[in-house]
Order: sequence, then structure tokens, then C-alpha cells
Amino acid sequence: MDNLSKYIDHTLLAQDANIDMIKKLCEEAIENNFYCVCVNSCFIMDVKKFLKNSKVKTCSVVGFPLGAMSTKAKAFEAQVAIEDGADEIDMVINVGWLKSGKFELVKKDILELKAICKDVVLKVILETALLKEEEIVKVCNISKDARVEFVKTSTGFSKRGASLEDVLLMKSVVNDSVQIKASGGIRSYETAIKMIESGASRLGTSSGIAIINKSNTSKDY
Amino acid sequence: MDNLSKYIDHTLLAQDANIDMIKKLCEEAIENNFYCVCVNSCFIMDVKKFLKNSKVKTCSVVGFPLGAMSTKAKAFEAQVAIEDGADEIDMVINVGWLKSGKFELVKKDILELKAICKDVVLKVILETALLKEEEIVKVCNISKDARVEFVKTSTGFSKRGASLEDVLLMKSVVNDSVQIKASGGIRSYETAIKMIESGASRLGTSSGIAIINKSNTSKDY
Repeated sequence: MDNLSKYIDHTLLAQDANIDMIKKLCEEAIENNFYCVCVNSCFIMDVKKFLKNSKVKTCSVVGFPLGAMSTKAKAFEAQVAIEDGADEIDMVINVGWLKSGKFELVKKDILELKAICKDVVLKVILETALLKEEEIVKVCNISKDARVEFVKTSTGFSKRGASLEDVLLMKSVVNDSVQIKASGGIRSYETAIKMIESGASRLGTSSGIAIINKSNTSKDY
Repeated sequence: MDNLSKYIDHTLLAQDANIDMIKKLCEEAIENNFYCVCVNSCFIMDVKKFLKNSKVKTCSVVGFPLGAMSTKAKAFEAQVAIEDGADEIDMVINVGWLKSGKFELVKKDILELKAICKDVVLKVILETALLKEEEIVKVCNISKDARVEFVKTSTGFSKRGASLEDVLLMKSVVNDSVQIKASGGIRSYETAIKMIESGASRLGTSSGIAIINKSNTSKDY
């Protein structure tokens, strides 16, 4: 696969990542033609500056990684990130409300973000590690109805990251109406290709360079 | 110690905690005379309702657990939580800015929250597991200057929770001008007492019932 780099959101979300690491991330993304740089919302203005005059997009996670803030606060974080220069927003759903059967609140949470995002690409992070199959199906259907651009498997901060089973199940629900971003634990070329073959059109990973060079990384999940 | 229950913020911050679990948490807090119930901001309105006519306070974490959102977003989350009924706000500092030497931004982050909180109790979470000694001292001094009510050791989501060394170091900086909340990994009566003897006047734990009953819990950190 020769355009693999264009599938990659080059990602650094560690709590203690400093500005030098964020700058390096951006330089690597430009050098390797990655699609996007994905960071926490406090770094969006810096990333926008570091990526100036490049084609690499800027992505902010929002409500990350628990998704358990009030809807108003989650929407406002997205609004500020967009004002700061984010081209894409990766929001975490409210898993607690989903587990409480409060599907209308889960839906409202997503719709409020969609209303803020307008033409900014919105990705809905399910955190599949914590969900039953029927819950994954439910959130995929809500996301489809909300006309978001992507459903995304994982934050990278839970018990496990993306599985092929997750991606295949999500694909079976959303078909071609919503794209899929696989994220969490994707560290080899082989895994990356399998995720794409299963239906993912974007990969969230901090191992992008190893992946496109077909070398494995030994980093723990 | 016979008033130990009044030191305890009865806490449930798991991403998949549902409304029934939050209700049970509140009932337990009332029954055991805990000082406070501590939850994610999406549940503050529910907790306020469940605690109605009791003396138990309501606490919301904010910017939790990474602290890596924009300052505007963190302040707004606190504002909404207070409007929803929070009596206390536990905010996470921006560790990435601290690690970048951007102390003015770390300070502004705290001051903006303090301005929102006014008389609402503000606790500043350091996440000591990620900090060097001099960084702990730095944030304690910033917090003291900002006249916040508490410095707090940990989110419970990092590599480790509170240590006695953390509490002793924090106490040596803030003396009696700022209180200390020890949190993360406090699961036995013995540990609770040691934390208080070292200078903590509040404990964040999900093992409050075991602690006041002097029975240990086997829950993993």
C-alpha cells in the first residue's frame, strides 16, 4: 500500500507530553505526509503554528478520555478548539449515560457537538473496550443519524484499543455512510493493513513512522 | 479516630459508572456521614438531587483526568458544574505546560478556575506520580499564591496514587495556608490515618466504607 501515510492521524495524548514533543510530532507529520496531527485541546494553537504552510490537518480530542463531563462543557471545549484552529474534533461519548440506558442524553451529547462542528470533521469515540456488542451497534446508529463523519474505536487510555472485531461490527452498522477510525494499540504495518481491510479509513496511532517503515514498535499499550 | 468519616470524599469516577452506581454512592455517603460525594461533572445534577436534605457536599472533578484541555474549556466546565450544584471543584493542573516550563500558563489555568469558583472550594490536583519534587514545590507555591483551598495529590488514573512523601512535601510548602487532599490508592484505615498524620485534611477514596470499618479492600489501584 503506497498511500498508507494518508490514513494516519499522528497522535500524542500523554498527560505529560511537553511542547518540544508536540513540535517534534508536527515535524514528523510533515516529513512523513501524515494526514493529521492529533493532540489534547490545550495544544491546538501550537500545532496550528507548527503545521503552517503544510497540508497536514489539526485534530483535537474533546472530553478526553472519559467523556464524562457535562454536554455543555464538552461542546464548549470543541468550540474553543475550533476557534484555536482544529480541523477535526474527536469527541468521547458519555459511556456512563449509555450504561444507564439514557440513550437520549448520549444522542444529545453527540448532536450538540455536531451543531458546534458544522463543517469541521467530527469523530465519535465509542471506547469499545467498555461496550457490549449491542451498545456498539446503538452508538453507531446514533452517530449515523447525527451525520457525523467518523465513528472511532478507542481513546488508547482504556483496557484495550481497537480490535478487528470492533471495526467489522461498526462497519456492518454504518456501511459507507460514516467512516471508521481505528485507534489504540495499532503499532505494526500488518495490524494497520488489517484494520483498513476491515473497514477503517483512518488510523489513530503514535507509531505511524514505524508503521509506514514496516518496522514494529515494542511500545506497550 | 472517631470523626474519620468527615475526612472522606466518597468517590466514583470510573468512565462506565452508571446512574444506579452514582445513586448508591450518594446513599452510602449519607448513611456513613461522609463529607462529600465526588463524581464527574455530567452527574452533578443527579448527585445534588440524591443528596437533597442531607449535609453531604457535592464535588465535581474538572479537566479530568488529563488536565490537558484549553484553560477556557476547563473554566467553563467548572462554571457549569457550579451552576449544576457543585459545592467543591477538583481541577487537574496542566501537566504538559508544567513540563514545558510554561509556569505562567499553569498559573493562569489555576487563577481562571479560582475566579470562576469564588467561594466554591477549589482543589488543585497535581498528579504527583508524574512530577519531580521541584515541580510539586512549584505547583504548591502557585496554588498558595492563588489562594485555593486545597492541593490534591492524584487523579487515581495515573501510575500511582498518593504517597506519604508527596503529602509531607506538599505540607512543607503550603503549611497551614492551603489544605491537602490525599487521593488515589487509599484503601485501608492504616493508610488513611498515616495520610492524615502527614498533613492531609481530606481523603479522596472509593474505599471509604472499608476505611471507617477498619477492613481492608483488595481492590487494585
